[in-house]
Amino acid sequence: MSEPWLEQVKWNSDGLVPAIAQDHVSGKVLMVAWMNREALALTVAEQRAIYWSRSRQKLWRKGEESGHVQQLHDIRLDCDDDVILLSVEQLGGIACHTGRESCFFKTLQAEEWVAVEPVLKDPHTIYDK
Amino acid sequence: MSEPWLEQVKWNSDGLVPAIAQDHVSGKVLMVAWMNREALALTVAEQRAIYWSRSRQKLWRKGEESGHVQQLHDIRLDCDDDVILLSVEQLGGIACHTGRESCFFKTLQAEEWVAVEPVLKDPHTIYDK
Repeated sequence: MSEPWLEQVKWNSDGLVPAIAQDHVSGKVLMVAWMNREALALTVAEQRAIYWSRSRQKLWRKGEESGHVQQLHDIRLDCDDDVILLSVEQLGGIACHTGRESCFFKTLQAEEWVAVEPVLKDPHTIYDK
Repeated sequence: MSEPWLEQVKWNSDGLVPAIAQDHVSGKVLMVAWMNREALALTVAEQRAIYWSRSRQKLWRKGEESGHVQQLHDIRLDCDDDVILLSVEQLGGIACHTGRESCFFKTLQAEEWVAVEPVLKDPHTIYDK
């Protein structure tokens, strides 16, 4: 885990960087989560998005529960070496735990955040199996 | 600055959230920067991207020096209320201080981060006027 490409990343004081997942065909931004060194190394090794869950303080293989795996197509690092961009194929077409394609489903209208994207699947049927 | 839509955002312990700028036509992810309450309020009021520069500890009207203003087309908030997504028109077609369209110009090839996007304009001609 001390490969130069991992060391080049500027990890924050918690040892994390934000990672954006973007649909490789539509370009839609699906979600943002966090990665530590291990998560990034595993993402590349397994060619699927693996994050670090800050709330659960453990590795989060995206889709492990929901089946909504994100298969890796390309991985980018920004000019400051502190943000990752994943180009992915979103299995099931749903990235968000609310059952929507993208987590960015709220837009600002008349000073209110309003949900403008449809729920594609009832979250209870995604997680309560 | 205590409007409900600003209070709904889950600011981190430094009072910041990450903001992604995405080209409103191509869907290309251009950059990620940070916003505080004032930056977000001004972004909406002025309909252009205004960030908080963590290095300079001041508001950063994107394009104030370079002319590479980001005009706002849509603004989104994610399901966790802690990431902003801006859909923008990137004036000059350059978001990155390196003179590239996007800050995400490095991809991983054979365990090395390799620049794969062209420099469109010499950065010295952008900033040293």
